[in-house]
Formats: sequence, structure tokens, C-alpha cells
Amino acid sequence: MGFIERREKLYDWMAEEGINLLLLEDAEDHRDKAVRYLTGQPGDALLFLSLARKSLLVPWDVNMANVYADVDDILPYTKFELNPYVAAKAAAAYFKTPYGSRIEVPAQTSYPSFLKYVENLSDYDIICRDEGAKSEIERLRSIKDSDEIHIYRICSEKTNEIIDLIEKNVVDKTLKTETDVALFIEAECRKRGCEGTGFSTLAAGPSRSFGIHCFPPYTAAPFAEKGLSILDFGIVWQGYSSDVTMTFARALTKAQERQILLIEKAFDLAYNTVAGPFKSKKEDASIPSRDIALVIDDFFKKEKCFMPHGLGHGIGLDVHEAPYLRRGADNKGKIERNMIFTIEPGLYDPAAGGCRFENDILITDDGAEILTRSKIVRL
Amino acid sequence: MGFIERREKLYDWMAEEGINLLLLEDAEDHRDKAVRYLTGQPGDALLFLSLARKSLLVPWDVNMANVYADVDDILPYTKFELNPYVAAKAAAAYFKTPYGSRIEVPAQTSYPSFLKYVENLSDYDIICRDEGAKSEIERLRSIKDSDEIHIYRICSEKTNEIIDLIEKNVVDKTLKTETDVALFIEAECRKRGCEGTGFSTLAAGPSRSFGIHCFPPYTAAPFAEKGLSILDFGIVWQGYSSDVTMTFARALTKAQERQILLIEKAFDLAYNTVAGPFKSKKEDASIPSRDIALVIDDFFKKEKCFMPHGLGHGIGLDVHEAPYLRRGADNKGKIERNMIFTIEPGLYDPAAGGCRFENDILITDDGAEILTRSKIVRL
Repeated sequence: MGFIERREKLYDWMAEEGINLLLLEDAEDHRDKAVRYLTGQPGDALLFLSLARKSLLVPWDVNMANVYADVDDILPYTKFELNPYVAAKAAAAYFKTPYGSRIEVPAQTSYPSFLKYVENLSDYDIICRDEGAKSEIERLRSIKDSDEIHIYRICSEKTNEIIDLIEKNVVDKTLKTETDVALFIEAECRKRGCEGTGFSTLAAGPSRSFGIHCFPPYTAAPFAEKGLSILDFGIVWQGYSSDVTMTFARALTKAQERQILLIEKAFDLAYNTVAGPFKSKKEDASIPSRDIALVIDDFFKKEKCFMPHGLGHGIGLDVHEAPYLRRGADNKGKIERNMIFTIEPGLYDPAAGGCRFENDILITDDGAEILTRSKIVRL
Repeated sequence: MGFIERREKLYDWMAEEGINLLLLEDAEDHRDKAVRYLTGQPGDALLFLSLARKSLLVPWDVNMANVYADVDDILPYTKFELNPYVAAKAAAAYFKTPYGSRIEVPAQTSYPSFLKYVENLSDYDIICRDEGAKSEIERLRSIKDSDEIHIYRICSEKTNEIIDLIEKNVVDKTLKTETDVALFIEAECRKRGCEGTGFSTLAAGPSRSFGIHCFPPYTAAPFAEKGLSILDFGIVWQGYSSDVTMTFARALTKAQERQILLIEKAFDLAYNTVAGPFKSKKEDASIPSRDIALVIDDFFKKEKCFMPHGLGHGIGLDVHEAPYLRRGADNKGKIERNMIFTIEPGLYDPAAGGCRFENDILITDDGAEILTRSKIVRL
């Protein structure tokens, strides 16, 4: 795994930015997969990176860190009273960080917590910003390296096997309820050596598919009965999650049939729009991710429909990460080669129910490859 | 459900504090169950509370809000470009909030995001603090009302039924792997009408029980074979989660047997320590939650052992909430009547494996009641 290479890129960036010490934190109230991306440690740790190109992990569970973490040194969090300010002060001393130099704390640091860092590390210049380490790591993570693409090939194949099994078992009525389908996925992904599912599987039978994300995620209610049923799931291989949505359609009204045709058309339109710029083989090909979302918004508008969520999002160690395919004016992201993201048009109606069709896309040297084979299953 | 009563208490507090508008946010990157506590909306929404004693919900999914939310008004988040600063500005206008008055934003607001609120709401005095609405709501939530205690009686009973079934099925080897046990819980809780599990079930067979929280949460590995196995789970009834840990012990070494005896003793000692002050029936009885943790720390220290995590925590809409039974010097919390929390001593060894014993406790008028019947199962 390229943990050292990933950290080297970040050290280069720290040197450019004049950051002497960088703190990243993965904790229960603000998860940050950057820690796993840079060290392999799955969770619950502080990570300090020094301009001296050395790393220090401060994990909650030191036994786990000894098994998983690829870092220069490990010190248990209990040594610092499980207090991030105490640990940060100790890390600054550990790395002999010169007084007055810049220490960057996580962008998600709350305003009250930022004030505590400033108070506890008064000898240093504390930086907290969105357009800093956060956006740099987001940018690094959005373009998958060869290890990551290899992981996604395996993850997608396992996802596809499970998609086919679900179709078969819903058709022959082995899987009858939302819970049946969701637990089938939990069992099948673990049989294949996966860590688990990437998020709570959303299985919404016809009575609940009107919600974008049904609540509760799945119940004992019937699945794939008359009307529209949605199944949104992802499985995790070596930390990386797929994300697909199947729709099951049975004995549809004309309005429901039209919903389905529109999301199928929208998917194809989005796929062709995103693939286009990369067919030229121009080395620095790209397309603003916002543009793709706007094409689909226009398409639905002409059909007098409205999609209440974004068109897609990057996937990786987080199930939602850059790039974001959404219309927001603040979305400055671009789609580039070796990015992996979802395309997931959906339409929802309080009476008719909802449908969504979602697959994972990899931008390749000469276009876009659809990694997963999600389906709209007509019963 | 007492959503209106809960909001009324918060309006009283806002009046005392001179807060004209209070913003709460439940979003993917910072969950806040306060929104559900005050409205019933399960997630993904902004909630604005005005000193005029009116509430406005701005949900991501308006269809879901129409089903679940008990508020004065609902406006879809898409109306505000899914942008919290735009929505906050609109809400200030909606409630005719006087210029110059105080608007409190969530305590978890990041430092960069706080600066954006200040910039976008320049006509108001923006407040962001830990000791404000956050701690007030935490305090309200830590003392359960009669509706919540009723919910916990049902939740505990369902948890106990599942504990008994797990024991039976592990003993007769119907459940053989970590995945078997974990998915059994997923299925059984939904059969009983639960929303799901409160957190990812942690099922660690003997090869993985050394970790406080095993990773991945469960795998295809054998469970309850020779040595120590840990099973940590909770089920959710009407939003509220139980939290229990069973340990399964088979063919133990002397060192492992001692680990188990010590956590059993620690549990009893902690229970008696916490129950003591409430037997007097003194109306304002209480005990610092830190003191209970320190008693157990001392106990383990005398036995030359070390517990690397807190002794317990409140449970409710969040699986970890106030009160916190931990030694941290910053822990100023008290245990009071009608609080519900866990006691969960555990010991972990890289070679011998780990064990933990956890039950849920309700402080009553005349002592403490153990709501759940978790077990150490000797096989």
C-alpha cells in the first residue's frame, strides 16, 4: 500500500505552504478517513505530520494501531488523557516544532475547539481553514492511484455478483421483505471477505420509496410488491465502498412507468456527457462536474420533473467524497482521469413512490467505464 | 410525544440567555440528534427556533418531514440551494429577527464555517459556544422524561429477549461465526419492530477480542471458540438505543479466567457505588459521574490491570451521550434520578484477548435498576 508515497505528497505540500505540523483527527463526532488514507489505521486516532517528514499516530486503541498502522511512531491517546489539546502540545514538543511556526488543525475543528487549540498552543501560529490541508487531501483522494483502482475492480466485481444474486432471489421470491434483502447483502459481502456494507442499506418497498433516503433504512415490510421499490447499497473491500441503487418495478401505473423511463434516459445522458471529453485522449482532458448535473437538471425540467438531490458523488474510503456532481454555484470541481464516482438520477412522488438508478463510473484513458451493473428490474 | 414541551423548555432558556434565533443542524458530516429530540424528524435538516416561540424545519427530504416532523412550519432545503448560510439568512427574515440581536449557531460549527455565518449574517450578533444551547440540550436530554423511560422499558425487554436467544443459539452452535451472531441480531430486532441496531454490532471471536472495538465490526471468523469472544450491540426502539456487551468464554487459561472475574467484580462495585446515594430518597440526591469511574480505576490499579476506556456513558437518541462515567478532569457531570446509562468494565490483552461486561442502568426514586440482562456465558 502506498501510505508512504501519499504522505510524501503531503509533506511536499506542507513545505510549499510553510506548515510545520499538521494535525488530522478521526473521532466519533467527526470522522476523517484521511487518517486511514495516510496510515492504514481504520479509525479513532490523531495523526501528526511534521515538516521533518515524520509521522506520529496517537490512537485510542494502541493494540489495533500496532496491527494496522504504517507510521513512524505510535503513542497511546490515554497518555494524553484522551485530550486533543494536551496531545497536540506534546506532539509539538516531540517534533521540536519551532516556536512561532504554523500548526494546521483539522478544517472540521469547531469554533469553540479552535479557541482551545489557540489557548493551549499559544507559542505557535494555529491555522484552521477549508482551503488548506482538507482540500489538498480531498484533491489527492479524488484521483485514485493504481492500488485504489485495483481495489475498485475487485469491489465492483463482488458488487456485481451480489446484484445478480439479489435479482435472482427477488424474482423467485426467496427474498420477500426489506430485511430479507438487506441482510442477504450483509451476509453475501462478508462471505466474499468484505469489511461490511459502506452505509446502512436502504431497502424501501412500495409504501416507503417516496423518500430519498427511506427511514428506517429497512423494516419487516414487503419488498418488490406492486409499485416501485428502491434498494441502495454498497460493499466495502479493503476500506473502499461501492455504491449502487437498483429499482424493482411491478405492475406499474403509466405515471410510474414514465418515472422509470426518465431516470434511465437521464443515466444514459449523464454517462455520455461525462465520457465525451475523455475520448479525445487529450492528456489534460476534464469537465466541470457541475456542468453534468446541469445537463440533467435541464433534461428533467423539460419533462416537468424535479430531482431533489445531486446527480452523483465521488466514492472511496468515504462513500461521499470529491468530485461532487451537483448544481451548486460553489461547486468548482472537475472530473478528471482516474476519478471514480456515481451517477444516480432519481425521481420521487409522495403518491406514486420513488425510483433511482445508480452505478459507479471510472474515468479511463479513453472514456468512462461503468464498473457496476446495477439494474432496473421489471417484475 | 412531548416535542412541544421540549421546545417550550428551550424557548424559556433562549429568553433567559437573550437568544433571538437558535439554529440546530443535523447533516451527514455532523449528526445532531437534537433535531429529532425536538421535532421527531429523524435526520438531515436545519431547525430554527425563534424567541417568538415558533419553529421552522428546513429538511433535505420534505416528503419525510411531512410524515415525521412535529413543527410549526416546513420549508424545503432545496429552496435555499442546500446552503446553510442562505437558509439562515432567510430564516432570520422569516422570523423578522431584529437587526443586532443574537443568533446562536451549532456548537459543532467549524471555525471556517463560523466565519461564513458571520459574513452572511452581518446584521446580527452570531454566537457559537460549547456552554450554550449544546450543553443545555445535553442536560435536558440526559434526564429522561416519562415517555422516554417507557420507551426504554420496551427497548430493554426486547434486548433481553435477544440476549437470551443469542445465548441459546451459541450454546447449541446454531450461531457459529461473528457474522451469524451479528445478522441474527439485525433480523431479530426488526422482527420486534425496531428501527435497527444502534451502532454496528461488534462481534469479535477469540482472535480479535484484544481490540476495544474490533475492526472490521464482524467477519466470517469463528465466534465463541476457545478463548474470549466479545459481542457488543444495541437495538433501537422509537429512536432510542440500548447498549449491552456479552462475553463468551470457552476453555480459558487462568489469566483469562482472572480477567473475567475482575470485570464481574468491577461491574458490581460500580453498580453499588452509583446506586448508593439514591437509596436515601433524598430528593436532590446526586453523585459526580467521575467519582464512579475513579473507584473502578482504583480497583483495577490495585489488581495491576488497566482499563483503556471510560466506565460508561448515557444512552438515548445517541448511543453515547451525557452523563459520561469517565475519569477526565474536565468531566463535571453528575448522575441524577431518571438518567439512563451504561456500566461497561473491560480488560484487553494483545495475547489473551479481551472481555467486557455491559448493562444499561436507570436511576430510580430509591436506587438503581439494571434494565438489561447481559451475561458472561461460560461454554
